[in-house]
Amino acid sequence: MSLTVLLGGTWDDKSAAYLEELLLPDVTLIRESSEGDFNILVCGRPDKRIIDASSQLKHLIIPWAGLPASTAELMAGYSSISVHNIHHNAVSAAELALSLMFAAARLIVPADRHLRDGDWSLRYLQERSVLISGSRILILGYGHIGSRVGTVCKSLGAEVSGIRRSVTETVEFDGVILHPPRSLHDILRKTDVLVVTLPLTSETEGIIGESELDILHCRSIVVNVGRGRLIDERSLYEHLRDGSIGAAGIDVWYNYPSSDDSRTATYPSSFPFGELENVVMTPHMGGAFGTDRIEQLRMQHLALSINRAAEGAEIPCRIDLSMGY
Amino acid sequence: MSLTVLLGGTWDDKSAAYLEELLLPDVTLIRESSEGDFNILVCGRPDKRIIDASSQLKHLIIPWAGLPASTAELMAGYSSISVHNIHHNAVSAAELALSLMFAAARLIVPADRHLRDGDWSLRYLQERSVLISGSRILILGYGHIGSRVGTVCKSLGAEVSGIRRSVTETVEFDGVILHPPRSLHDILRKTDVLVVTLPLTSETEGIIGESELDILHCRSIVVNVGRGRLIDERSLYEHLRDGSIGAAGIDVWYNYPSSDDSRTATYPSSFPFGELENVVMTPHMGGAFGTDRIEQLRMQHLALSINRAAEGAEIPCRIDLSMGY
Repeated sequence: MSLTVLLGGTWDDKSAAYLEELLLPDVTLIRESSEGDFNILVCGRPDKRIIDASSQLKHLIIPWAGLPASTAELMAGYSSISVHNIHHNAVSAAELALSLMFAAARLIVPADRHLRDGDWSLRYLQERSVLISGSRILILGYGHIGSRVGTVCKSLGAEVSGIRRSVTETVEFDGVILHPPRSLHDILRKTDVLVVTLPLTSETEGIIGESELDILHCRSIVVNVGRGRLIDERSLYEHLRDGSIGAAGIDVWYNYPSSDDSRTATYPSSFPFGELENVVMTPHMGGAFGTDRIEQLRMQHLALSINRAAEGAEIPCRIDLSMGY
Repeated sequence: MSLTVLLGGTWDDKSAAYLEELLLPDVTLIRESSEGDFNILVCGRPDKRIIDASSQLKHLIIPWAGLPASTAELMAGYSSISVHNIHHNAVSAAELALSLMFAAARLIVPADRHLRDGDWSLRYLQERSVLISGSRILILGYGHIGSRVGTVCKSLGAEVSGIRRSVTETVEFDGVILHPPRSLHDILRKTDVLVVTLPLTSETEGIIGESELDILHCRSIVVNVGRGRLIDERSLYEHLRDGSIGAAGIDVWYNYPSSDDSRTATYPSSFPFGELENVVMTPHMGGAFGTDRIEQLRMQHLALSINRAAEGAEIPCRIDLSMGY
């Protein structure tokens, strides 16, 4: 069916041209200054004006993974418009999770810093190194990102479990044991590496708190590429500082730069994580934003979603506004 | 058959006891102070005295991967004693190669350093990040370590090639394309990530030099977990400094501490690699020496080799002294 798609916000011409190339012939792509009705809006943080601008608007596609609070609030007033996102960056988030896991497991950051100063000591102090082969990995949130992490950990010779909201009884899937959320504490007792890839919702906020971190053993590794507030901030800091968990690799934080100007002067937490040697800290880089490859993947995923609608099929990755993802 | 094995050098009692547990009943394990003949000597750098101490000595097992120069020289005089090593640490070396690859690909070291100071800039400057998914990986030396790296890169969605000395024509093996050494330059032209896992021999020294690094493109990543001198020192430094390759993750070096005292004050190269932001530097940690898990694996591999001899079968991983590995 013939469709008009409004590309909202700022896009570089090269990306827009690439998207146009991928779309079916009966899809018309227009930019924000255009006049006339449209059926699909591609926009992460639309305002009311643009939603009301077309009486034919049926679908909103957020061109990334996640649902901004302002968008959730606005779209709650438009029950006839379905909201979707795309998971084009699951590949890059999964690879960042693995990067953080390996860096934490093999002491990469302190080893690098010391060797630059001619200090080889860590070569002889590897007792705290962890091999992934033979380790028990728990992936909390076994979705687009988590399942990729799981596949790779399996190929490394790890024993992989996942926890997934929609699972009601323990099942095996592709060699990975998936458990329902109620089994969390049981599985944490048998976990060497915890990888958190959940979305942040009212249900998941603080899902890893004081008592969950207490269960983990003192050599365990915690990786978070979901959202900061999935893990209790103070408990995470204190468990790392006290060595009651072994190490962490953290990409998502509690405090973000509020403006372009503050990008070089914003501590990611009110706790001094930067003083700890057993944490690897990255500034929310899971999405690999701005790399050619990820922009290409973004356009491919958008095209897939739009072409599905043009074929009269359902657009994938629909968001349940009441669930928040 | 009944066998006596001399465990040469210093071993902690726990490891020796674990090894004893794993050995077949007709194998007797003795320590260095013992009297009497032995059939197998486990020792990395034996002296002539210990080799001559038993007229029944048939096999020397070096309890790690690699052949020290002094051992090669000594054993060249004993053609009736076969020399073997074990590859118990292929798992940990492969995981370190992956750790270095990911750290270089996702800017982990500078991202961590900046974020500790409240600087999020790299979140917005990820153009130089590399996704392994979709990348072309070349593994130079497709053996115990390389094949593990290859399997994991495959599961990440990369296109994996290997170069192996014993391959004479291009063949596919488990989804990996293996090439003979003469194809090196051809494959380097189509390589995004080069992982070097070769042993150092007269044939492999400097195998990656000026002209090989020139072929690689300016976003490419070089990882070395083999031995430093496989890659020409000056060329590697200059290509990184000038940005004619993208990044490197290097575990093996050109200059090592000569004594316990110099472990904290030995620069790994006469070139200032430590001034470069696009290199990840680790102090020869591939073997994960000293971790419980690797010591356990070492004893398991030793037991496997010794038990094979006790059963009258060939001990695996025999070293060809003339080849040097």
